[in-house]
Amino acid sequence: MCAISGALSAGRKSFDLLGVAIVALVTAIGGGTLRDVLLDRYPIFWIADPTYLLVILASAALTVLYVRFRDPPYRALLIADALGLGFFTISGAQVAESKGLPAIIVILMGAITGAAGGLFRDVLSAEVPLLLRKGELYATAAIIGAAMYLVFEAIHLPRPLCATLGAAVVIGLRFAAIRWRIALPVFRAPGEEDSRAD
Amino acid sequence: MCAISGALSAGRKSFDLLGVAIVALVTAIGGGTLRDVLLDRYPIFWIADPTYLLVILASAALTVLYVRFRDPPYRALLIADALGLGFFTISGAQVAESKGLPAIIVILMGAITGAAGGLFRDVLSAEVPLLLRKGELYATAAIIGAAMYLVFEAIHLPRPLCATLGAAVVIGLRFAAIRWRIALPVFRAPGEEDSRAD
Amino acid sequence: MCAISGALSAGRKSFDLLGVAIVALVTAIGGGTLRDVLLDRYPIFWIADPTYLLVILASAALTVLYVRFRDPPYRALLIADALGLGFFTISGAQVAESKGLPAIIVILMGAITGAAGGLFRDVLSAEVPLLLRKGELYATAAIIGAAMYLVFEAIHLPRPLCATLGAAVVIGLRFAAIRWRIALPVFRAPGEEDSRAD
Repeated sequence: MCAISGALSAGRKSFDLLGVAIVALVTAIGGGTLRDVLLDRYPIFWIADPTYLLVILASAALTVLYVRFRDPPYRALLIADALGLGFFTISGAQVAESKGLPAIIVILMGAITGAAGGLFRDVLSAEVPLLLRKGELYATAAIIGAAMYLVFEAIHLPRPLCATLGAAVVIGLRFAAIRWRIALPVFRAPGEEDSRAD
Repeated sequence: MCAISGALSAGRKSFDLLGVAIVALVTAIGGGTLRDVLLDRYPIFWIADPTYLLVILASAALTVLYVRFRDPPYRALLIADALGLGFFTISGAQVAESKGLPAIIVILMGAITGAAGGLFRDVLSAEVPLLLRKGELYATAAIIGAAMYLVFEAIHLPRPLCATLGAAVVIGLRFAAIRWRIALPVFRAPGEEDSRAD
Repeated sequence: MCAISGALSAGRKSFDLLGVAIVALVTAIGGGTLRDVLLDRYPIFWIADPTYLLVILASAALTVLYVRFRDPPYRALLIADALGLGFFTISGAQVAESKGLPAIIVILMGAITGAAGGLFRDVLSAEVPLLLRKGELYATAAIIGAAMYLVFEAIHLPRPLCATLGAAVVIGLRFAAIRWRIALPVFRAPGEEDSRAD
């Protein structure tokens, strides 16, 4: 899902096909890689299981193909992106939790896993990261979702329910931000003014 | 101190409040985190002791509050920034030294610990890093200070004195650069042309 | 060789001398450092043997001196850069291979070692990375060269020959890209529009 977002972002910058693949990879695995390096968790998840890379590259390729033939349905893409943020955030929090780390680190690792990939994507595109701009609620959604996940656990809800509810909080906040125009959509029309290099 | 510099820099880019917190965190812990990762020194200092994160977030919050009510006294902020650079540089050098690493690595780790956070801050803001621009003497001060710290040790001054003198060299060089306008001040007026995203 | 490319790129941005040294260091050791961190391979190569740093700094200093007295011969520089890409790519692939990692990781580590330094260089300069732009074949050359290296091994060519041929593929592809103007040269005239900060 993050791979799709990365591929679309790269497409707007007139990168070449390999550039699209690189940006898709960095967007999709950047957050989890930073988490694994910070937590000294080796081998890093995509080195332990390179299937991740193949799935990401296939997603990026399908996205590129799809976009070539018709405009992407932005609503569907926003949904894919929000689902990815919710899933990655909670899984990142769970990794930190399984290491017995304190709550603030668990929340931070959730947010890093969910949101750092998009931050790397924007840095690679020489843009001020979306994550940091007013009115996106992107990292906010990840942080609140990860914190609620811990709250759900503290009140002894069953663990799978905690994860599902935590992810739902992330996704719900992102949707709320988009629907009530608290935030600009992540995928704006390709016609936006982009600083086309060369 | 670096947290304050990060928060102020973020405020100029019209980031949202969480964006300010993220930039403050990255500025304050970025250098030490890179040092710990490069030296395979786990757990990373702010995971070992998350109090760091709380202190940084509190500093950033106070800075935001303060700036909301009155303009920051740039002189005071420059002093805070220089003190932070001096302190972090020497502590970074000491970490590398305690691992028995050669002098060039000790100096480099000092400079990384002191100055890399500001570099990450600028990259996040899609700006050419201040660190690299003409006339700042930022990294220069860190490198010379760390080198002098090793010289002071080599001539067998007492260890705490070495650290204090080393930090004083860093701070003195930064002050000299600012006072004699060898350098532009780090915190310029908020009215500077900033590429307001959106 | 990458040190030279970094120094020249920094020179175009009117960095100070230390900024040039930092960019040269990051360009030259960035890729191998990222590879070592991702593979949990400590101590990192330039901490294990700081001679690397001295050679890089000397190369950067010579480049700065040279450029001060006469314009660099771009053809020679392109050759140096292509040789560096070929050499670093294959050595990065060999490191991953010696850890018994699967082919896709070997190829990726080769590309990271060869090309990530230049990517860091561009991010530090707040530019859209060359690596990602249309028509450079930079990362493409690294990926194809690393893959061919594995193919040469699979058909049981002698190991030193595999490495030489793999590097030759990388270098040949870069030269082809430049000669037939598939790509813009990496080192364009210093007169290009550069966003001179300050």
